[in-house]
Amino acid sequence: MSMAGLSLALSFCLIFLFAISEASRCSIIGLPLVRNISELPQDNYGRGGFSHITVAGSLLHGLKEVEVWLQTFSPGSRTPIHRHSCEEVFVVLKGTGTLYLAPSSHEKYPGTPKEFPIYSNSTFLIPVNDAHQVWNTNEHEDLQMLAIISRPPAKVFIYDDWFMPHTAARLKFPYYWDEQCFEAPVKDEL
Amino acid sequence: MSMAGLSLALSFCLIFLFAISEASRCSIIGLPLVRNISELPQDNYGRGGFSHITVAGSLLHGLKEVEVWLQTFSPGSRTPIHRHSCEEVFVVLKGTGTLYLAPSSHEKYPGTPKEFPIYSNSTFLIPVNDAHQVWNTNEHEDLQMLAIISRPPAKVFIYDDWFMPHTAARLKFPYYWDEQCFEAPVKDEL
Repeated sequence: MSMAGLSLALSFCLIFLFAISEASRCSIIGLPLVRNISELPQDNYGRGGFSHITVAGSLLHGLKEVEVWLQTFSPGSRTPIHRHSCEEVFVVLKGTGTLYLAPSSHEKYPGTPKEFPIYSNSTFLIPVNDAHQVWNTNEHEDLQMLAIISRPPAKVFIYDDWFMPHTAARLKFPYYWDEQCFEAPVKDEL
Repeated sequence: MSMAGLSLALSFCLIFLFAISEASRCSIIGLPLVRNISELPQDNYGRGGFSHITVAGSLLHGLKEVEVWLQTFSPGSRTPIHRHSCEEVFVVLKGTGTLYLAPSSHEKYPGTPKEFPIYSNSTFLIPVNDAHQVWNTNEHEDLQMLAIISRPPAKVFIYDDWFMPHTAARLKFPYYWDEQCFEAPVKDEL
């Protein structure tokens, strides 16, 4: 086989392997019913000091009503300031940190948020549409949490700061961990 | 004060204290936003070797779309065989056990279930309307899990055994841990 032929064959082979790995990452086919969480796909999605696992999800596992995430924040790392109209419940598994919450969805902008210490074995829920941010403010320890949201996939609006008007917050959809497996619905051209 | 007067006053006092404790158990008024899970109400609801905490709930915390439970099963204890039309995700925090699942909601009765070993740091979801049972089949260790359901409060149908017809399963609503705080909607008499 010529070098060109070999190179072509190799390229096809790589494309095929990539297609398989993409398909399995975005499909429940072949996944066991009971799954080891530490064997699920895990990524930082471009955010330093962060790790996200979709434990049970809409795009990955066909759920329509709830989604469960396992997230780990290294010291100093945090979520963006954001809001969403779905319900969200957190269960803190390890570490400590701070929840910043601006209960002002009826004002023009979030404004200075209230601060709440969060800690291992604590739980809190985010009122629908309230801008919030979770921050690992502990200098030494990871903060690990389960986050539960309703009506997946998440439609998240992101703020640059607490004084950005609600109307200026940017919709990020699909959200970082949904990008790879999201397929936009086919448009009806009628 | 006479003995009768004293007894009457004491009775009123007890009724008053009971009313306060009932109100606070079924209301979020005065609850902090961030809650220590180990300080939340915990009960076995008449089931030996079982403990349930509603971490975030519909009746207790005003959620409409998701509910989160923390449940602990001592060795040998188990859920009833049951089904529900809501989505349900489990995250196993401690221990091992067995999931029994009958994926036969379109048959006449559940039939012999499939058995799946479950273990710490595993997750699984229950397909909508499939009859299932979780059993701590480990003789030595507690089984602790978070259960997440959609569309609370839970509407649960209970089977006596795996060969009871789906149509004979009994609706238990409100479910055990929702009984105390459930208020039936006022009937429209038109």
